[in-house]
Amino acid sequence: MSRLAVINPNMSVGFTDKIRDQAQRTIYPHNQVIALNPDFGPDSIEGYYDEAFASVGLLSVIRTLDPTGIDGYVVACFDDTGVDAARCLTHAPVMGLCEGAIRFAQALAGRYAIVTPMHVSVRPLEHLVRKYGADRDCVVRAAGVRTLDFEGENAAMAYDALYQRAQKSLHDDGAEAIVLGCAGMTDIADRLKSDLGVPVIDGVQAAIKMVEGLAELKLATSKHSTYGTPPAKSYHGMFDGFAPAFV
Amino acid sequence: MSRLAVINPNMSVGFTDKIRDQAQRTIYPHNQVIALNPDFGPDSIEGYYDEAFASVGLLSVIRTLDPTGIDGYVVACFDDTGVDAARCLTHAPVMGLCEGAIRFAQALAGRYAIVTPMHVSVRPLEHLVRKYGADRDCVVRAAGVRTLDFEGENAAMAYDALYQRAQKSLHDDGAEAIVLGCAGMTDIADRLKSDLGVPVIDGVQAAIKMVEGLAELKLATSKHSTYGTPPAKSYHGMFDGFAPAFV
Amino acid sequence: MSRLAVINPNMSVGFTDKIRDQAQRTIYPHNQVIALNPDFGPDSIEGYYDEAFASVGLLSVIRTLDPTGIDGYVVACFDDTGVDAARCLTHAPVMGLCEGAIRFAQALAGRYAIVTPMHVSVRPLEHLVRKYGADRDCVVRAAGVRTLDFEGENAAMAYDALYQRAQKSLHDDGAEAIVLGCAGMTDIADRLKSDLGVPVIDGVQAAIKMVEGLAELKLATSKHSTYGTPPAKSYHGMFDGFAPAFV
Amino acid sequence: MSRLAVINPNMSVGFTDKIRDQAQRTIYPHNQVIALNPDFGPDSIEGYYDEAFASVGLLSVIRTLDPTGIDGYVVACFDDTGVDAARCLTHAPVMGLCEGAIRFAQALAGRYAIVTPMHVSVRPLEHLVRKYGADRDCVVRAAGVRTLDFEGENAAMAYDALYQRAQKSLHDDGAEAIVLGCAGMTDIADRLKSDLGVPVIDGVQAAIKMVEGLAELKLATSKHSTYGTPPAKSYHGMFDGFAPAFV
Amino acid sequence: MSRLAVINPNMSVGFTDKIRDQAQRTIYPHNQVIALNPDFGPDSIEGYYDEAFASVGLLSVIRTLDPTGIDGYVVACFDDTGVDAARCLTHAPVMGLCEGAIRFAQALAGRYAIVTPMHVSVRPLEHLVRKYGADRDCVVRAAGVRTLDFEGENAAMAYDALYQRAQKSLHDDGAEAIVLGCAGMTDIADRLKSDLGVPVIDGVQAAIKMVEGLAELKLATSKHSTYGTPPAKSYHGMFDGFAPAFV
Amino acid sequence: MSRLAVINPNMSVGFTDKIRDQAQRTIYPHNQVIALNPDFGPDSIEGYYDEAFASVGLLSVIRTLDPTGIDGYVVACFDDTGVDAARCLTHAPVMGLCEGAIRFAQALAGRYAIVTPMHVSVRPLEHLVRKYGADRDCVVRAAGVRTLDFEGENAAMAYDALYQRAQKSLHDDGAEAIVLGCAGMTDIADRLKSDLGVPVIDGVQAAIKMVEGLAELKLATSKHSTYGTPPAKSYHGMFDGFAPAFV
Repeated sequence: MSRLAVINPNMSVGFTDKIRDQAQRTIYPHNQVIALNPDFGPDSIEGYYDEAFASVGLLSVIRTLDPTGIDGYVVACFDDTGVDAARCLTHAPVMGLCEGAIRFAQALAGRYAIVTPMHVSVRPLEHLVRKYGADRDCVVRAAGVRTLDFEGENAAMAYDALYQRAQKSLHDDGAEAIVLGCAGMTDIADRLKSDLGVPVIDGVQAAIKMVEGLAELKLATSKHSTYGTPPAKSYHGMFDGFAPAFV
Repeated sequence: MSRLAVINPNMSVGFTDKIRDQAQRTIYPHNQVIALNPDFGPDSIEGYYDEAFASVGLLSVIRTLDPTGIDGYVVACFDDTGVDAARCLTHAPVMGLCEGAIRFAQALAGRYAIVTPMHVSVRPLEHLVRKYGADRDCVVRAAGVRTLDFEGENAAMAYDALYQRAQKSLHDDGAEAIVLGCAGMTDIADRLKSDLGVPVIDGVQAAIKMVEGLAELKLATSKHSTYGTPPAKSYHGMFDGFAPAFV
Repeated sequence: MSRLAVINPNMSVGFTDKIRDQAQRTIYPHNQVIALNPDFGPDSIEGYYDEAFASVGLLSVIRTLDPTGIDGYVVACFDDTGVDAARCLTHAPVMGLCEGAIRFAQALAGRYAIVTPMHVSVRPLEHLVRKYGADRDCVVRAAGVRTLDFEGENAAMAYDALYQRAQKSLHDDGAEAIVLGCAGMTDIADRLKSDLGVPVIDGVQAAIKMVEGLAELKLATSKHSTYGTPPAKSYHGMFDGFAPAFV
Repeated sequence: MSRLAVINPNMSVGFTDKIRDQAQRTIYPHNQVIALNPDFGPDSIEGYYDEAFASVGLLSVIRTLDPTGIDGYVVACFDDTGVDAARCLTHAPVMGLCEGAIRFAQALAGRYAIVTPMHVSVRPLEHLVRKYGADRDCVVRAAGVRTLDFEGENAAMAYDALYQRAQKSLHDDGAEAIVLGCAGMTDIADRLKSDLGVPVIDGVQAAIKMVEGLAELKLATSKHSTYGTPPAKSYHGMFDGFAPAFV
Repeated sequence: MSRLAVINPNMSVGFTDKIRDQAQRTIYPHNQVIALNPDFGPDSIEGYYDEAFASVGLLSVIRTLDPTGIDGYVVACFDDTGVDAARCLTHAPVMGLCEGAIRFAQALAGRYAIVTPMHVSVRPLEHLVRKYGADRDCVVRAAGVRTLDFEGENAAMAYDALYQRAQKSLHDDGAEAIVLGCAGMTDIADRLKSDLGVPVIDGVQAAIKMVEGLAELKLATSKHSTYGTPPAKSYHGMFDGFAPAFV
Repeated sequence: MSRLAVINPNMSVGFTDKIRDQAQRTIYPHNQVIALNPDFGPDSIEGYYDEAFASVGLLSVIRTLDPTGIDGYVVACFDDTGVDAARCLTHAPVMGLCEGAIRFAQALAGRYAIVTPMHVSVRPLEHLVRKYGADRDCVVRAAGVRTLDFEGENAAMAYDALYQRAQKSLHDDGAEAIVLGCAGMTDIADRLKSDLGVPVIDGVQAAIKMVEGLAELKLATSKHSTYGTPPAKSYHGMFDGFAPAFV
C-alpha cells in the first residue's frame, strides 16, 4: 500500500476539490491519496511570477507531510511548479502534470498538442517541453480563455474554445492526441476524447499513475547530484523555519 | 481489472520464465499478466538483424492474443523490438523496456546511464534514446559481456562486470541512476541498487507499471496517423496469413 | 565493373518493373544492375506494420544474392525498410531511397520538401529525416493520394495533387527543391522539375548513384560495431533457414 | 545616466559587499549602481531548494526598488535565480550572471568551460546552458570546493582547485576561455586570466555591461507574452503583500 | 577610454554615413568611434557571393587599423560577414550585427523575429541563428523589399512593408520583439518600436554596446584554438600583401 | 559524358598535383576531370583567415571555367572553403570534401571520426559537421601535425601520428570508420584502411563520386533562394572584375 499526496500549489479550494475527486477516482483501490493546497500563496498560477510564490507554498506542504510517510507526490499544476526543488526536499518520487502527461502521450501518438487556456502560458510550457526532450513531437497551443473560465458560468464557452483549438491542432499541426494543459480541466478529458475521437490525456491522472508505479517499485529520487539533499544552512526572516537541516 | 501481455520477442524460454516471474511480482494484484514468446524466430536478439525477425514473431503473438481482450502489451526486449509496428496492429497501449525505463529514470535523476551487456548494442540504443528525446541526459555503456552470461556459470562474472561499469559511469559520466539495458538482467535490480546506492531501474518493471497505468485510464494508441491501422491488402508466401484485414 | 542489386521490398511486380527501368536508365554503362522483389510479403508498404514483414523479405533476397557477388544494394522503398538490418547482413554498401535523396538534396538547396503520397507516412518519414540529421532543412508533406494512384487511371489526378502540394511547399515552407517521397513516382521527376522550375530528386536515381560511388571506391560497411555481423545462433520455426552463421 | 541595481538573492552580506565592490569598479562612471540583498531567505544558494526561497527574496527587493526608478537589474547569482519571474515583475531589463557570462564568452571563444565550485551545481547549470542555447559550445565542470571556501582561510586551497580544474578543461575539453561559475569568485578573474593565459569571464562584470547597454538603449523587457505582467489576483497568508496589482 | 571601429564591409558610403551617425549617437561619451568601409569590393551584400568579397575588404580595413590601437570592432553587416576571420586577425573583440542583436533580444523576449529585406537572406540568416544557438527562439522573415529601398524615394513603401511583416510575425509566430535584419534600417528602430509596441532591436546599437562592454573589461578574443593567430605563410598575386606575419 | 573541375583553393602546386592524380584515378572513364588552383592567394589553408582569401581565389577559377561548360565542381579542401558562394555563382553542383566524406561515412558506420592534422582545425570542422547535421554521429580529432608534414621528410612521422589518433578514436570514441580530414592525405586512404581494418574515407574521392552522380542526373543547384544568382551590382577596386552580371 502506498500513500500519495497530490498538492495543488495554489490557493483555489475549488481546484483542490476537483483535483481530489479526480485523484480518488484515479488511484488504485489499495492505495491512499490526500489532496491539499498550501495555506499561503496566490489564488492561481498564471506565469513565472505566481509560480515563484507557489513553489514556496508547495515546499511548505511537503515539509509538513514528508515525516508522516508519503510514498509519492504529484504537483497538481501543469507548469510543474517547484518540482525540481521538491525533488531535493524528499526521497519520495515527485512528478508534475506536464511531465506525467507528456510521458503518456509519447507512448500513444507520434505527435500531440498541449492545449492550455492562456496565450501567456505557451512559451513557458514550450520551455518545459524542451526540458523534457519532447519539443520535436509536441506543440503547445492556447484556447484563449482564462483558467477559471472552466468553472462557473463560462464553462460552456471555455469548453467550446478548447474543443475548437484542439480540433484545429489535429488538422493543422498533425496532432494525433491532445494533452489538457491545465489542472483545472481534469474533469473534461472523457468528454473531449469522445468529441474528438483521439486520446485525450489529463495530467492529473497520468502523473498519479506514474507516481503510483514509482512508489510501488520503491524507486526513490537519486540523491547523487542534481536532486541532492540541500546542505544544512541558516534561513532568515519569514523563511526562518524553512532552513534545510538534513544529514 | 486489466489483462496484460508481456511478450519476449525471442525464443529463449529461460528468459521468458524469468520475465514472467518478474511480471507476476510486479503487477498489481487486481490485474492479470501473461508472459510468452513467439513460436518461431531467433534465440536471442543481438543487433538489427535478429531484431527484424523477432519483430515478426512479436506481431504474430499479438495477432493471436488481441482478439482475446488484452488491455496492454509490454515488449520485453530492451531494443523495443517491433514496438512501432505493434502500435499499428492493436488499439491497446504498447511499450518496450527502453522507453519505460527511460521515462522512470527521467523522473528520478538529472543524468543516468543505460548499462547494456554488449558493445554492439551501444549505438542502436543511442539511436533509441535519441528517438525518445533523452540523449542529452542519458549515456549508454556496455559491460562487455554477452546477454546469456547473466544466467548459469558466468553469472557472477557478468554481475561483476555490470557493477564495475555502472560504478565507473557514476563517477566519470556523472550518472545519478542506472538503467538495466537488457531484459535478462531483470532479477538483479535490487542487488545492484543496494551495491551502488543509487536508483536502479529495470525496464520490465517500469514498462509494466506504465502500461498498467495507461490501461487503467482506458488510454488507447491514437489511430489518427503515425500508428494508424494498416490498410487492408494482400500478403503472399509464408506471410500470407499476416495480411491486415482491419476495418 | 560493379554489380548492383535494387530490391523492391514489396510484392508489386509493377513497381519492380518501373524501378528496373529507372535503374537501367540510371546506371553507368560499365556497371550492371538487377532489380527484383522478394517472393513473399505485402503488396505495398504503408506504415510500420507492412514494413516489419517487408524487412524480412528484403533480407531473404540479400541472403540469396550476396554469395553471387553483389557490390552494392539499393533498398527501393522510401521508408528505407530494413536498411539497418541489411547493413549487418552484407559487407556491401546498402542505401535506401530516403537517405540517398536527402544526401543529394542537401547539396543542391538550403531547404527542401519531401512530398509523399499518404498522410500516414508523414511522421515515420519525419523520424527518418531526423535520424539522418536533416530535420532542420527538410519538411515532409503529403499529397493526399495513395501510392498506387500513380499508376493506372488515377495517374493524372495523382500527379496533379503532387504538383499542387509541391508548389505550395515552395511558397509556404520556403522549399527550394522537391524530393519524391515514394519509389512509385520514379518516372515523373523530369516532368515535375520542368513544371516547377526547381530541382526534383528521385530517390531511386540518387541511391543508385551513391551506391555506385561507394562500390567503385571499394568502400564497405564497417563491421566494427553498429553494423557488426550478427553472432551465430539458432533460429526456429518458419525462420529456421535465416539463422546467421557467419564467422 | 542609468541607475542599476545588483541584487544578491542570498543573505550573505560578505558576498553582497564583494559584489558591490566589483559592481562599482565595473560600472561606467556616468551610471549609478546599488548592491543589496533581501532581508529574508537562505545564507547561500546551493541547489534548487535554496533557489526557490531566494527567488521570493529577489522579487521582494525588486518590488521595493522598482518604483524608485531602476533602469536595469543584475541578479548576482550564477544560477540566474528568479530571473524569469523578475522579468515579469518589472519593465526594466534583468539579467543573471550565467546568461551575461555566456553571451560574452560566445563572442570570444569557440568553446569554453564554466567552472563552478560544487559538483551538485553541474547539472542545474547544464540545464541553464541548454536553455540559453549554448550547450554545444560550453561544458560545465566543478572544482570540488564549497562556495564559501573562496573567502577566509580556505581561499588559497579553493583558488588552487579552481585553477587546476580550469587548466584541465583547457586541455581535455578543448576549452578556450573560462567562465567563473559563482558570484563569489568575482574578485579573482584577473589573477586566473594571468595564470591561465586565456580569457576569464566574470558574470558580475558581464551582466552589468549587458544591462548597462540595454538600459542605455532604452530597451525594455517585452510584455507581449512570456514575460507579460502578472494578472491581478489575491495572495494569501505570509505572501499577502506580494500580490500583483498591476494594470 | 576605448577606441572602437565600426566597419561597413560594403562600399556604400551612404550606408557608412548612416551607420556612423548611429554609432556616434550610441557610443558612451568617454569612448571614441570611427566608421569606415573598405576601398574595394561590392556596393552591397546580398547573399554568399558578395559576402566572400566583402570579407576580404573587411580584413583589409582591420589590418590597417589594428596597429593604431583599436579596442573593439563592430562588423556593420547583419550577415556577420567575415567575423570569424576577423577574430583570427586581431586580439580585440569583434562582433557582427546579428550576434549582437540576438544576444540582446534573448534577454528581452521569449521569442522574437528577425525581419530582413530580401527573401534570399532568410536561409543564410537562419544558418547564422542556428550557429548562435538561437534557432528555437528566433524566426527569420523577409519584408520583400531590397536593402537600398530603405533610402530615397522608396523609403515609405519599404517601411510599410517592414511594419506589416513585423506585425504579422507578432501575431502568427508569437514573436514578442523584433530584430532589424539589416544595417540599413538602423535609423528606424524607434519609429517601429513606437508603432508596434514591442521592443525593436537594432544590431548596430546592440553590437556597439556589447563590444564597448568587452573592451571596457579588457576581454580579448581567445587565441587558444578556434580564433588562433594564423600561422605565417606566403600569399601570392593580388593578395600578396595580406599574408599573415604574426608572432 | 561530364566534365568535372576539382579546384584546390590554395596555391600549393604539390597539393594540386596530388589531388589531380587522385581525381584521375577516381573518375569514371567516360568522364573528364581537370584539377587546378587559383593564381593568387595563400599557400595553404589553416583557419578562417586563410579561408577568406582562398574563397575569392576559388570563385575566380569558377568564373573562368564556368563558361567553358563544367558539369560539376569539387572544392578540394576539407574546410569546404567558399562552397556556399560557389553555389551562388554556378548552376553546376558544387561539393566540398567534408560534405562528400560525411555523406559516405554516414552510409557505412553508426559513428565515425574525422582525423585532421592540426588542433586549430577541430572547432571549425565541428561547426561544419553541425551545419551538415552530423554532429551526433561524428567526432573531430587532431593528429597534432601540420598539413604539409604529409609530404617530404616528415611523412612517416605524420602517418604514424594519424594512425595513432585514428586507432585511439576507434577505441575511445566508438568510431567505426575514419574520415581523412585534409585534402593532403588523399593518397593514404588505402594504407590506413589496411592498417586499421575499418573503412577509411577520402574526401576527394567521395566528393568526386557525389558530383559525378549529380552531374549524370542533370541535377543543378536550386536558384530559388539560398543559392540564388547574385543580383547585378558594381564591384570596385581590385575586385572590379568580379562583379556579378548575371541575368
